Amino acid sequence: MTDAQTKRRTRGGGGAARRAERTAVSIETARYIERNIPNFEILTPEALEIIEANAETVLAEIGVNFVNNPAALERWREAGADIEGERVRIPRGLARKLCETAPSRFTQHARNPARNVEIGGKTLVCAPVYGPPFVRDAEGGRRYATMEDFRKFVKLGYMSKWLHHSGGTVCEPTDIPVNKRHLDMLMAHMTLSDKPFMGSVTDPSRAQDSVEMCEILFGKEFVQQNTVMTSLINVNSPLTFDDVMMGALEVYARNNQACIVSPFIVGGAMAPVSVAGTLTQVLAEVLAGIAYSQLVRPGAPVIFGAFVTSIDMNSGAPTFGTPEATQILSGAGQLARRMGLPFRSGGGLCASKLPDAQAAYETANTLNAALLGGVNFMLHACGWLEGGLVSSFEKFVMDADQLGVLHKLAEGVPVDENAQAMGAIAEVGPGGHYLGCAHTQENFKAAFWRSDVFDYKPFETWDEEGARDTQALASRRVAHQLATYQEPVLDPAIRGALEAYVAEKKASMPDAFM
Amino acid sequence: MTDAQTKRRTRGGGGAARRAERTAVSIETARYIERNIPNFEILTPEALEIIEANAETVLAEIGVNFVNNPAALERWREAGADIEGERVRIPRGLARKLCETAPSRFTQHARNPARNVEIGGKTLVCAPVYGPPFVRDAEGGRRYATMEDFRKFVKLGYMSKWLHHSGGTVCEPTDIPVNKRHLDMLMAHMTLSDKPFMGSVTDPSRAQDSVEMCEILFGKEFVQQNTVMTSLINVNSPLTFDDVMMGALEVYARNNQACIVSPFIVGGAMAPVSVAGTLTQVLAEVLAGIAYSQLVRPGAPVIFGAFVTSIDMNSGAPTFGTPEATQILSGAGQLARRMGLPFRSGGGLCASKLPDAQAAYETANTLNAALLGGVNFMLHACGWLEGGLVSSFEKFVMDADQLGVLHKLAEGVPVDENAQAMGAIAEVGPGGHYLGCAHTQENFKAAFWRSDVFDYKPFETWDEEGARDTQALASRRVAHQLATYQEPVLDPAIRGALEAYVAEKKASMPDAFM
Repeated sequence: MTDAQTKRRTRGGGGAARRAERTAVSIETARYIERNIPNFEILTPEALEIIEANAETVLAEIGVNFVNNPAALERWREAGADIEGERVRIPRGLARKLCETAPSRFTQHARNPARNVEIGGKTLVCAPVYGPPFVRDAEGGRRYATMEDFRKFVKLGYMSKWLHHSGGTVCEPTDIPVNKRHLDMLMAHMTLSDKPFMGSVTDPSRAQDSVEMCEILFGKEFVQQNTVMTSLINVNSPLTFDDVMMGALEVYARNNQACIVSPFIVGGAMAPVSVAGTLTQVLAEVLAGIAYSQLVRPGAPVIFGAFVTSIDMNSGAPTFGTPEATQILSGAGQLARRMGLPFRSGGGLCASKLPDAQAAYETANTLNAALLGGVNFMLHACGWLEGGLVSSFEKFVMDADQLGVLHKLAEGVPVDENAQAMGAIAEVGPGGHYLGCAHTQENFKAAFWRSDVFDYKPFETWDEEGARDTQALASRRVAHQLATYQEPVLDPAIRGALEAYVAEKKASMPDAFM
Repeated sequence: MTDAQTKRRTRGGGGAARRAERTAVSIETARYIERNIPNFEILTPEALEIIEANAETVLAEIGVNFVNNPAALERWREAGADIEGERVRIPRGLARKLCETAPSRFTQHARNPARNVEIGGKTLVCAPVYGPPFVRDAEGGRRYATMEDFRKFVKLGYMSKWLHHSGGTVCEPTDIPVNKRHLDMLMAHMTLSDKPFMGSVTDPSRAQDSVEMCEILFGKEFVQQNTVMTSLINVNSPLTFDDVMMGALEVYARNNQACIVSPFIVGGAMAPVSVAGTLTQVLAEVLAGIAYSQLVRPGAPVIFGAFVTSIDMNSGAPTFGTPEATQILSGAGQLARRMGLPFRSGGGLCASKLPDAQAAYETANTLNAALLGGVNFMLHACGWLEGGLVSSFEKFVMDADQLGVLHKLAEGVPVDENAQAMGAIAEVGPGGHYLGCAHTQENFKAAFWRSDVFDYKPFETWDEEGARDTQALASRRVAHQLATYQEPVLDPAIRGALEAYVAEKKASMPDAFM
């Protein structure tokens, strides 16, 4: 595969491409995380069994709705479900049985094979914020997002060492017609980054466009044989699968592309106001959604998703980084692992309107829960603000920096002879100090993680330099990253074919803004 | 005991005290945390055994120094250690054997028995920041701490629902002579709060004063039979026990009062630049220190402490909330539990100069690590800023609020019939919503934790109200807490006796500022 890709990448590449390849700056990206630490498991086996039994009861007795989707109802009928109108009641055990053909782990390929990611098992892949209609930065405040903002976020993602994935709708480019913006978004991910990315899900035809653009980028045969997109299919909770999302899922599953089947729940509104009840509903929805993907194409890669926020019962506002959100994340991870499926949950989620302390407490609570809860695909790992209404430039680089903490923590604790450092303890002895000893000299460079954003200077120096807070430090980093960004090399023939595809598609339909 | 205390509290109390008792506002404080969740264990049993064997080697072959303390050397000689100058080499197994008389769990009594805390096993007790010479607030900036600042922090601690303990040196009152400030600090904890507190450790005579003031507050017999103070004994790492700290420990152990024996380590400077090496040294130091406490008085209550920061190898500055700090905290907790001892580690530690996003990321990383790492006594749980140089008023209430997250998370996940919510799922069905259903109405009040500091309002409302960041919201809360503070009732006779003790002690010596 690597050979094929290499060939593909250089096919038709002239002297310009080769020159570009020679002069391009290589942006270092850490390999996806492979955990060498245990998962934190909050639920007992008995609790998990209760929830699993209840989820089967929900599917068998209450059922789920597949809306405006006669083909789906027919697939379910053939599989043995009981159909009544749009309601699908699934006999106990059937959904779980159907899910068994889904792979426990898969590779998502990037156009640069060094950026391929493994999703499942002990891995953790970090992808940026998804979906906000607004952006914010310190200079310009909060405003509707544009395609230019979108491109900047893709560039920042490409420049982020600890971010493995370019994501999808890093913000909604509201200046581009709704029915055409997916083309520009995909073009940005394909040309401004060489990390893996997500496809469009807002209409089945846009999912099809995503597949076709990937066929240009990767080659048609390669796409059919390999997963090159992981896309986000939200369940319309409670217990409802609408035709738009299912239509996109059908396109992706048929083409061997990965879907995250993700209940989207504001707790107390779209699910019961209890952790166990919410987990029951999450599991029922995921079982039905993933089973359906396997009815479309057995073996299609999928991810067990769970996006669940708590709610402020005073105001009805969604809340993040709360203990209940952590409990649900942790429990959902356990349920996913018992199904042998990759797991997706939140990353740097927060409710705050600013990249301030509230945002950071909420975000850090979620990031820690996600690492320890066994998340394999972390969407919204950086840049999310204001409950997902805003993509923040400063928070993007702040969070992306914190992902480094997760990488180092996941490595676990070496206890080889060098790590034991018995020679150093003997050399230094009581009352001595370690800064100058041989062991320290040999090991200090890799010993401690350090932030590339935070300030570690003495108070006096920091004060003289303007007493900058984290937002100000992050603003400076955003500007530096964008100023030093260099586009990764892409075969000009492929670029030309992509541009022609986008132009042709755009010309084929009138603009739509709804 | 409760009867005796009640009697003591009303003894000699006249009509004024009774009137005060009737009119006093009752400040709600949560009970200390009793975990109903598993601990996160980062080290394998094999790794733990290697570290334990190495720590015995350190004690037997390298040894520890007990400085300026002939009585300590004599105690060690009698116990079977090898003494050479001030160096104490402890045969394999001896220190661990001596530690066996230390209790695995103890009660620290407060003058209000409802505020007593249990330290050990699955509990977590939260105490505020300890030691900074500076304070900071949004209005006044950074400045030297005064006794007035100290009193404000004690009041804020008393008002904090999720804080179980009044702490010790919540800031250094630099306007009071060094040799007298412990008297004013104890007086503040004893009169402005009714939560448990810590004693002075800066000189053995000041530890003795702490015991004598407690004898006035609790009664002499009560103090000898019960633990009423938990005090912080730092080890002068590496492997050195100085006469000041050991002198204080001797006073407390003789009087049945608890000590935290706590290696104080900036990684790479006072310990090897590796997690396993640092844990080896931590364990050796704790074994020696706690064994010594048991030589002074077998059965004296103690806590296995570990204060370890990582370091920025570029500048030498200590760093907080880093992955290595989490690894060491987690590993030290495992070592403590294998000794059957209560465990202390950091709380809201951070390097940031401001209560901004950096501070909150670093703090939240540490708070999460401490909850999951099995910490029993969390010092610096709130208010710590700038690597411990500054006590921040705003961060005090921000962190104290976040401690609520830990309380709820520690409760675990109920799976009783009400929590399963199967009736609600059936009632609402596919496509419905839960806000109005009976289960939600019955459960919503206790369902989700909410912050008392953060902003959950819609953007427009928040913007109209001044677009306040977390620091501004916290400033308002500090002012509100101090304005509504009411002193807890104290028997005037006891207050008078304490005042007389302090006045007499102060008059007995000249001021010293060094």
